[in-house]
Amino acid sequence: SVVCKSREHLHEFTDILVFLLHADPNMVNAGDMNGSGNLMDFLDEPFPDVGTYEDFHTIDWLREKSRDTDRHRKITSKSKESIWEFIKSLLDAWSGWVVMLLIGLLAGTLAGVIDLAVDWMTDLKEGVCLSAFWYSHEQCCWTSNETTFDDRDKCPQWQKWSELLVSQSEGASAYILNYFLYIMWALCFAFLAVSLVRVFAPYACGSGIPEIKTILSGFIIRGYLGKWTLLIKTVTLVLVVSSGLSLGKEGPLVHVACCCGNFFSSLFSKYSKNEGKRREVLSAAAAAGVSVAFGAPIGGVLFSLEEVSYYFPLKTLWRSFFAALVAAFTLRSINPFGNSRLVLFYVEYHTPWYMAELFPFILLGVFGGLWGTLFIRCNIAWCRRRKTTRLGKYPVLEVIVITAITAIIAYPNPYTRRSTSELISELFNDCGALESSQLCDYINDPNMTRPVDDIPDRPAGPGVYTAMWQLALALVFKIVITIFTFGMKIPSGLFIPSMAVGAMAGRMVGIGVEQLAYHHHDWIIFRNWCRPGADCVTPGLYAMVGAAACLGGVTRMTVSLVVIMFELTGGLEYIVPLMAAAVTSKWVADAFGKEGIYEAHIHLNGYPFLDVKDEFTHRTLATDVMRPRRGEAPLSVLTQDSMTVEDVETLIKETDYNGFPVVVSKDSERLIGFAQRRELILAIKNARQRQDGVVSNSIVYFTEDPPELPPNSPHPLKLRRILNLSPFTVTDHTPMETVVDIFRKLGLRQCLVTRSGRLLGIITKKDVLRHMAQMANQDPESIMFN
Amino acid sequence: SVVCKSREHLHEFTDILVFLLHADPNMVNAGDMNGSGNLMDFLDEPFPDVGTYEDFHTIDWLREKSRDTDRHRKITSKSKESIWEFIKSLLDAWSGWVVMLLIGLLAGTLAGVIDLAVDWMTDLKEGVCLSAFWYSHEQCCWTSNETTFDDRDKCPQWQKWSELLVSQSEGASAYILNYFLYIMWALCFAFLAVSLVRVFAPYACGSGIPEIKTILSGFIIRGYLGKWTLLIKTVTLVLVVSSGLSLGKEGPLVHVACCCGNFFSSLFSKYSKNEGKRREVLSAAAAAGVSVAFGAPIGGVLFSLEEVSYYFPLKTLWRSFFAALVAAFTLRSINPFGNSRLVLFYVEYHTPWYMAELFPFILLGVFGGLWGTLFIRCNIAWCRRRKTTRLGKYPVLEVIVITAITAIIAYPNPYTRRSTSELISELFNDCGALESSQLCDYINDPNMTRPVDDIPDRPAGPGVYTAMWQLALALVFKIVITIFTFGMKIPSGLFIPSMAVGAMAGRMVGIGVEQLAYHHHDWIIFRNWCRPGADCVTPGLYAMVGAAACLGGVTRMTVSLVVIMFELTGGLEYIVPLMAAAVTSKWVADAFGKEGIYEAHIHLNGYPFLDVKDEFTHRTLATDVMRPRRGEAPLSVLTQDSMTVEDVETLIKETDYNGFPVVVSKDSERLIGFAQRRELILAIKNARQRQDGVVSNSIVYFTEDPPELPPNSPHPLKLRRILNLSPFTVTDHTPMETVVDIFRKLGLRQCLVTRSGRLLGIITKKDVLRHMAQMANQDPESIMFN
Repeated sequence: SVVCKSREHLHEFTDILVFLLHADPNMVNAGDMNGSGNLMDFLDEPFPDVGTYEDFHTIDWLREKSRDTDRHRKITSKSKESIWEFIKSLLDAWSGWVVMLLIGLLAGTLAGVIDLAVDWMTDLKEGVCLSAFWYSHEQCCWTSNETTFDDRDKCPQWQKWSELLVSQSEGASAYILNYFLYIMWALCFAFLAVSLVRVFAPYACGSGIPEIKTILSGFIIRGYLGKWTLLIKTVTLVLVVSSGLSLGKEGPLVHVACCCGNFFSSLFSKYSKNEGKRREVLSAAAAAGVSVAFGAPIGGVLFSLEEVSYYFPLKTLWRSFFAALVAAFTLRSINPFGNSRLVLFYVEYHTPWYMAELFPFILLGVFGGLWGTLFIRCNIAWCRRRKTTRLGKYPVLEVIVITAITAIIAYPNPYTRRSTSELISELFNDCGALESSQLCDYINDPNMTRPVDDIPDRPAGPGVYTAMWQLALALVFKIVITIFTFGMKIPSGLFIPSMAVGAMAGRMVGIGVEQLAYHHHDWIIFRNWCRPGADCVTPGLYAMVGAAACLGGVTRMTVSLVVIMFELTGGLEYIVPLMAAAVTSKWVADAFGKEGIYEAHIHLNGYPFLDVKDEFTHRTLATDVMRPRRGEAPLSVLTQDSMTVEDVETLIKETDYNGFPVVVSKDSERLIGFAQRRELILAIKNARQRQDGVVSNSIVYFTEDPPELPPNSPHPLKLRRILNLSPFTVTDHTPMETVVDIFRKLGLRQCLVTRSGRLLGIITKKDVLRHMAQMANQDPESIMFN
Repeated sequence: SVVCKSREHLHEFTDILVFLLHADPNMVNAGDMNGSGNLMDFLDEPFPDVGTYEDFHTIDWLREKSRDTDRHRKITSKSKESIWEFIKSLLDAWSGWVVMLLIGLLAGTLAGVIDLAVDWMTDLKEGVCLSAFWYSHEQCCWTSNETTFDDRDKCPQWQKWSELLVSQSEGASAYILNYFLYIMWALCFAFLAVSLVRVFAPYACGSGIPEIKTILSGFIIRGYLGKWTLLIKTVTLVLVVSSGLSLGKEGPLVHVACCCGNFFSSLFSKYSKNEGKRREVLSAAAAAGVSVAFGAPIGGVLFSLEEVSYYFPLKTLWRSFFAALVAAFTLRSINPFGNSRLVLFYVEYHTPWYMAELFPFILLGVFGGLWGTLFIRCNIAWCRRRKTTRLGKYPVLEVIVITAITAIIAYPNPYTRRSTSELISELFNDCGALESSQLCDYINDPNMTRPVDDIPDRPAGPGVYTAMWQLALALVFKIVITIFTFGMKIPSGLFIPSMAVGAMAGRMVGIGVEQLAYHHHDWIIFRNWCRPGADCVTPGLYAMVGAAACLGGVTRMTVSLVVIMFELTGGLEYIVPLMAAAVTSKWVADAFGKEGIYEAHIHLNGYPFLDVKDEFTHRTLATDVMRPRRGEAPLSVLTQDSMTVEDVETLIKETDYNGFPVVVSKDSERLIGFAQRRELILAIKNARQRQDGVVSNSIVYFTEDPPELPPNSPHPLKLRRILNLSPFTVTDHTPMETVVDIFRKLGLRQCLVTRSGRLLGIITKKDVLRHMAQMANQDPESIMFN
């Protein structure tokens, strides 16, 4: 019966292995079932290590999928046995949705908490609320009765530090005191953050997206999505964002959501025991992360699909959407922005755009592309320098210095002093009648009485000109400081700084076009669409387009970027400007280098990531890539019926391969299967301990029926059950293009190379990556995890 | 040099084949290059048939991809030679975008023309515009100066037929005359449509989506996307929609857009010569089709991704989005709805939804799921009857009868007389202060003065009660007639009738809940959120939710459905109700059967479609599926160096396989490659005609270097160049689950089965489909195209 089963259970080697190792073959053959109760216990017992992967190894997607199908089949057949099993099977079927619900709830809650905490701590750098110290500036004045509508920012309850400490709110000394305390708070926050990261969770630094991409492609990095990382990343994210550094919380929120996903998937054995299924959950979690970062559930799903995920079946699409929605609604019920809007920067523009405006929009696209290229080049150069020189040895000092520089330069300029998302929000806004911002200091025509919604183009007042200068300075500062900030040993996202750069550039262009159109109505380009007294140009729209262009240049997102932008701002009408800018930006940036910032960091860190987007177009063949190369020692193989246990043990000891092909004999080299190193070791260890008569001299058989042995020869060791009888093979003439495709689409770990049925060599995923690096004239050793 | 090249050019057998066949091997070996000019001409000359597939065959995705890479490599290497070649390479790189632009423009234009024509012809059934007969009712009265705002529908220029013919606009005889002419026009349109389809383009019938899914999965149906189909489908679509049949133009528009895609891709050799690349264009065209059908570009892309496409790389995602946007904006500039909105049913609701309302929404979801199940079962049963009984022999009569029944029953009821999209639009609408519809006949409180936007819940007037009865009758009628309409030999879409069914049910539920809430403010469920005088329930929202539920039940779309619905109505705030209904509807419908209407029609018609969504969970192995089965004649193989030309010709004549494995010898059965039938025939034919000394007795060599032959033996025929040296192999122990996965993900046509290097058999895509059908207890022969 065991023999019959073996064919069906082909891939269930975990259980069968146990069964085999503890079953005396003679006993089963003799039909003696006395020991079967004992055997059954072993079958139910979880076998600790089989089916897991070692750290920094690549998973085998096909095997994971096949294991899941086996599990599913087992549950389905059991479910007919009793009602309890039926309920269990229902629970199993629904566990995917439950995990999604939990991820959505936790990710939404964490995002809400982070938003509230950042709000409070950012304001803490400037002052404190006397009525309740846990109120942020806005909340403080919101609850106060003494606030007038015109001066929403001023209320007696909110005290700047200078007012509180030396009872002075104006004057040079108060300014210096506030300035000094601002820097001190920022340094405190940053120091605390970098210390926490260094001591408790080194994996909490960075945006996390490059690593998540690598993990989702099938790589194992233990602890990267652990509970400590989750906790520390959440706390330090609040600290670094509040410290005023030029970074955003959006990228790290994806990491936080993925940690949530990993945590909840560890509660359900369906996901915790299957690395492939776990990655489906993580893909959905990434969608939930973007969903709460921007309040853009559809954009989040598309981001996960386009940018992060590797294996994204349709079922996952639907579940990701669910998780993203739950997360977005949890965040909305927490309502951290106080406007009960889902979106981060809600804007409403009152004028359409005109075809002639496409020209400045495309210009902004070019700017975005150039900024993307510049940023990626400089940032990678700086990060490489950090890795290779002594700079990398002082991460705390680096953070302190950058924080100090940021705080010192940022404070005097109102556009850099406030939080970056507030800045973006202000830049996106259209100037309504009630807007008090300096950017809206236009000269009004006192005779004009018009509805508040429809304000015509007006000449700029002195405030606008001041704002232009300040914005220009802020733009240069942001560009420079962001390059040095991204990549430090603290959580840091790129979305918000990139968008800020684009929004500043866009707003300046927008105001320029607006003033040009106002003062030169008669120019041909304006004559058709901009009559005097009409509201033609919306500078806020330019800021939005610029933000999209810069974000696109850095990340090379396309559809998801446009969808996020239009969900972010609620404007379905502006898809064409956004898309024109995004396309231009991508084309310009791609002309200088195909890699987005995340791929660049993946390469910098040497993660073994096989990008779906890279096209492999070289003419090499499998024979050029496979090991052993010409002149190298022949491939280490096992033979099916001629090696002793000792031979096998020696082979295992002398090599560090993850598995060995099994051939008929060394002469014929006809392939019959593949044996995993891990399982070989376990099987031999177990057999030596528990199976009588298995000694070093025993012959190892991978065949179905070992021949009759002379009576005094040692007991044979039958290992057919740990043999993978369907190893993946290609011929030596297969173009590497096809091999790369197979590795990508099927998620293989290794592939054997044959010629007319004879085993020639092996290609592993790392061989493929090394070859691709070589073909791209990169150092082939740079792809190793380091 | 030829030998060296052969390894690099491995897959370029098209060109190399020509090279080989016309090159005297001795000449090349001798270094005599006199004939090379001649040879080069052959190389440039397009070889007519190689690389194309026969009708009703499946393409080999891997081979297509590899051919495209070769083409790309050739262009890249040539582009360095001269400026002209460089420009050509740039044009080639941009041709994808150009094709998308053209598709977008043409699809948008056609959709606009169809919309305008349908508008005009629908109104033509009732009357004619005297000032300009090509104006529709609305346009006619819009241009008239004598129209008042309250009576937008009435103007002297628009004359009903009764007014025109017998100068009577009221009374029984006028009604009967109008009724009669309405039916006559409908019959005329329907007869014309079905005749055109039968005579000119039989492929123009149906929605086209099942066939497009099959084509995109790699099947060849010549003429299905041809120019005649495009023309006839466009014209007949206008006719059938105008005839008042219960069908929509949305599904067929996807077919129309795909025809456009096919047409434009035939203009560029990059796409016309590569079936794989052509399918990328078609995927994008499908997105453009949905985009113009609903004015929903993002929904269109997701629809193409989720529902239609098979191979959807990220590059295609981005291009689809571009095509969808261009199409939507072309449509908007044509502005067929006269409201300069992109969307079909623009609504703006003024009240949020409440948690308690989720209950009716979920009920609507259940209704949608039940409707979906009912519709699919009944429609498939009816279509099967049509296929198998004599009914199918009278398609024209069937259309005439159904049209007559539809017109006779539809005319008396105002909700079925008008076009279905107008009906949906009215049902979705919120009752504003200016609404004149019968559905908005509420009893107003004369003392109440409130802003027009915020009308409280009011008691229903007599008009609403009449409308409820009429809606109920219309609902029953729509449900029944749609089952018989979909599948007739005319273009017919399902989206609009499904949405209409849902919208009617939803509106009725909505009005019910509204009146319940108005009359029973004190019930616990209403007390929390619905105070007297408040505007709590929006019946239009219920209609929208119901429409989504019914559409979901029929098509089993998920994310794309929700996105289309919210793009359709412009309401980001209502994602949760929509999603609750869509999820419920899918779950309910899936409980009764996993197939959506399109998959059901694919199965009914026996298209060889390997669905990505179907999970294969059986425990069979490759050995159970491969041919030859036990007891069957052995596999027809070629040997590498022992068969004569005559042997090969006999083998080709006696079998109809698409290709033959090549083995070392019949004894060893070690596989060395795979030869396509097509190429074998061509090669032998060419060799016999042009190569001296190749006779029936010549030995065919697939080896690299044929041995020295005795001097008087016939000239050998070397065919290594047409040999595919990297055929796909699996072992006989490979689980079918993995094999199915490989076929799906790599798009294989066939796969060879080996055991320890020995060839055992072959599995083709049809074997896989047959096996899957068998496992699902279906007739395995039903999968053949019939």
